[in-house]
Amino acid sequence: MITTKIKKEIIMIVGENNYEDSPASKLVYSFDATPQFQAMPDAVVSPRNKEEIAQIVKLCNSHQIPIVPRGSGTNLSAGTTPLEGGIVLLFKHLDQILEIDEENLTITVQPGVNTLEMSQAVEEIGLFYPPDPSSMKISQIGGNINENSGGLRGLKYGVTRDYVLGLEIVLPNGSIIRTGGKLAKDVAGYDLTRLFVGSEGTLGIITEATLKLIPKPETKKTVLALYQSMDAAAQSVSNIIANRVIPATLEFLDQPTLKVVEDFSKIGLPTHVEAVLLIEQDGPIESVLKDIEKIVTICKEHGAIEVNMAQSAEEAEKLSTARRSALSALARLKPTTILEDATVPRSEIANMVRAINEIAAKHNVEICTFGHAGDGNLHPTCMTDARDTEEIHRVELALQEIFEKAVSLGGTITGEHGVGAMKAPYLHLKLGEEGIAAMQGIKQAFDPNNIMNPSKIFPKSTRKRIVVNQP
Amino acid sequence: MITTKIKKEIIMIVGENNYEDSPASKLVYSFDATPQFQAMPDAVVSPRNKEEIAQIVKLCNSHQIPIVPRGSGTNLSAGTTPLEGGIVLLFKHLDQILEIDEENLTITVQPGVNTLEMSQAVEEIGLFYPPDPSSMKISQIGGNINENSGGLRGLKYGVTRDYVLGLEIVLPNGSIIRTGGKLAKDVAGYDLTRLFVGSEGTLGIITEATLKLIPKPETKKTVLALYQSMDAAAQSVSNIIANRVIPATLEFLDQPTLKVVEDFSKIGLPTHVEAVLLIEQDGPIESVLKDIEKIVTICKEHGAIEVNMAQSAEEAEKLSTARRSALSALARLKPTTILEDATVPRSEIANMVRAINEIAAKHNVEICTFGHAGDGNLHPTCMTDARDTEEIHRVELALQEIFEKAVSLGGTITGEHGVGAMKAPYLHLKLGEEGIAAMQGIKQAFDPNNIMNPSKIFPKSTRKRIVVNQP
Repeated sequence: MITTKIKKEIIMIVGENNYEDSPASKLVYSFDATPQFQAMPDAVVSPRNKEEIAQIVKLCNSHQIPIVPRGSGTNLSAGTTPLEGGIVLLFKHLDQILEIDEENLTITVQPGVNTLEMSQAVEEIGLFYPPDPSSMKISQIGGNINENSGGLRGLKYGVTRDYVLGLEIVLPNGSIIRTGGKLAKDVAGYDLTRLFVGSEGTLGIITEATLKLIPKPETKKTVLALYQSMDAAAQSVSNIIANRVIPATLEFLDQPTLKVVEDFSKIGLPTHVEAVLLIEQDGPIESVLKDIEKIVTICKEHGAIEVNMAQSAEEAEKLSTARRSALSALARLKPTTILEDATVPRSEIANMVRAINEIAAKHNVEICTFGHAGDGNLHPTCMTDARDTEEIHRVELALQEIFEKAVSLGGTITGEHGVGAMKAPYLHLKLGEEGIAAMQGIKQAFDPNNIMNPSKIFPKSTRKRIVVNQP
Repeated sequence: MITTKIKKEIIMIVGENNYEDSPASKLVYSFDATPQFQAMPDAVVSPRNKEEIAQIVKLCNSHQIPIVPRGSGTNLSAGTTPLEGGIVLLFKHLDQILEIDEENLTITVQPGVNTLEMSQAVEEIGLFYPPDPSSMKISQIGGNINENSGGLRGLKYGVTRDYVLGLEIVLPNGSIIRTGGKLAKDVAGYDLTRLFVGSEGTLGIITEATLKLIPKPETKKTVLALYQSMDAAAQSVSNIIANRVIPATLEFLDQPTLKVVEDFSKIGLPTHVEAVLLIEQDGPIESVLKDIEKIVTICKEHGAIEVNMAQSAEEAEKLSTARRSALSALARLKPTTILEDATVPRSEIANMVRAINEIAAKHNVEICTFGHAGDGNLHPTCMTDARDTEEIHRVELALQEIFEKAVSLGGTITGEHGVGAMKAPYLHLKLGEEGIAAMQGIKQAFDPNNIMNPSKIFPKSTRKRIVVNQP
């Protein structure tokens, strides 16, 4: 609880304008992009620098006040809902690109920098930051780091973790540490940098990050392959990679998703086929053309009824934008859209897609599937209505079965969305109780008072859960 | 201490043949490849499977007996010297490649598999495991994972950490956990996989690993650029990368190293120049030729007096083998060879090499420098004599100054060799006391009785240090 005295102390640190506790501002930060989770914070605080953050953390630690660090709140795992109240901490004053270092191919940023703006800034000078979460137009890089965001280019280029070289972190005890640096190699002790990437704000607050850049690929080509059979599409995915071609993106959309996306984007996507693969390759022009030729041959050999190369950069961009709009498009159908995130080894995609469809039919729920087929990272998406408790119950049964199936195929309960509060009840499926205990040991070591984003990753019986309508 | 009763219990677990405590066998495992560190274990134990390892760990934990997991002991940081006695644990019965999965591009191995044999096994079927520590002929993959080994290809391809997808681990409490999997994306909780990579055997025992493979590059070309000025060589390194070319390897050798390596390898290396860069590019032939052309131009523009492309694969292989033999060649000069491992942002290489030479002159010690210039990962190597305590004192002063300089340039005290016992006294330079405290919290959480490889990473005042002659 934030008493009047504590409120005064926080205002002393951040200034009056950076402390909000009106009902309206608390409501705005009571939820994130995840349906079905909402809880009121006690205050919304926007510190101006790391020293202020350290002071707030010390104060909150001594009074056991929860802190939820929040970027743009685009996560889909209830990772930034203030389920135990306390402070939602914003980075609107830490939104600067501090340096682009062209000799060391690094960029140093504050956590509040917008992901797309950062990407564009480096591309303008011929460099490239590959991670491209679908939310990048809105998301902040600090949020991406907390969540270890993935994206469409994961297959070839990896995820956020693979690009974080160094961090500045305010620990729950208020000390400020720096990890890593502009270094291709650093083995000075445990890898705190990667431990913090994806720790969902539960171990400390990231106040600065140095990220790795690579040269911008010379060119990019896009291909759309159409299938009348899900299995044929999945077989193509496995065969492309087994043939030693690693495309930049290898996206899968099933027919229901295609119909909805076409209805939303009106770019002439085929809606008469059961599935499409959207495949991009980038790099030097000669290798791209060679790879695309191989890809086209493999798709045709494995049952594609049509394979079309985008005839211009604009057409390619349209396809890619349409794919990125899948969530927005699907969200128009029903009051509540639950975008899930089951991941399997890519050889198991056909089995997983089949299982999802069987599970959806069994529980009589509506599920579309799309996602990063090359990664085995599928997004089964459920269109439902949070007000219909009977249907929501069936949805939850179906999702649990989907996670169990993914794990039984050697997969995981979340490929890129994080555990948050939403997946916490399923974490044991992937890790077992011993694995969870090991992680809890880390949490306890860093944050013994459990002030950092409590009720996330590890399930807690006292958590508030308010079902609300979601547009 | 291992009492007769405990010895019997261990033999009950692993069988008589897998428990050695003769003076000869204890002597063999009293040191690793690191000069100046030696201590006797109480026993050398070779379990036959993970269940036996779990039983041994439980037994040792209840009796507070140290366990030092050891691959081939090629590390250069005294990472596997049994400084507190106890058990040296070998993986000679866990030496199988369990699976190569061509659809998911993974290999699953036991920790005792030889690194080079593993690399060759995957290359035979057109796949590629990029990490190539110089010790790979002898080293084991389990050791590579414990140390997060680097190598010559780090610049373009990353290090061991970047290829570990999943682990099976016996924790100090005896429970067996699995992390990650054949998954391009997995964010189910904290990244235990990468936390264990490079944890130097201080958190648990790795009993299985799933590693990422990539398609084998189509072709490789090698170039040797000769310089009469260290600065010119360093400038070339920065400029190659600033020009958006990322070579597969970008190695630097100074004149003293060149002379010694040529004397050892007799392949006609130039010994009249101040420095050389050994540069390899791999990939599709068209891109390789384009990159090599750019590289040659940049080297010439930045003061290379000669740039030669290897005329055949054999010639290229000879150059690369000569580079890999640098440590062996240097080790012939003096009784003791201390191969160091300071890393800086690559833009600081010229400054760092200059500083190393100044520091060597100041303390009147003999230091050659070579290393992975593209990574900023330099190996200043000191030829000395451990019996000469006065000289060793000067060597230690010089090394401390080198680490301080590296950190002041934004670098680290170890790029790829690990902290072990050797670098533990310098860890605070890189991390500060708060950073060390954070890491100690993790150690305490996993291993409260400090049985796993004690006296490593974190300095301990009781550590035994015996100066011995080193051939």
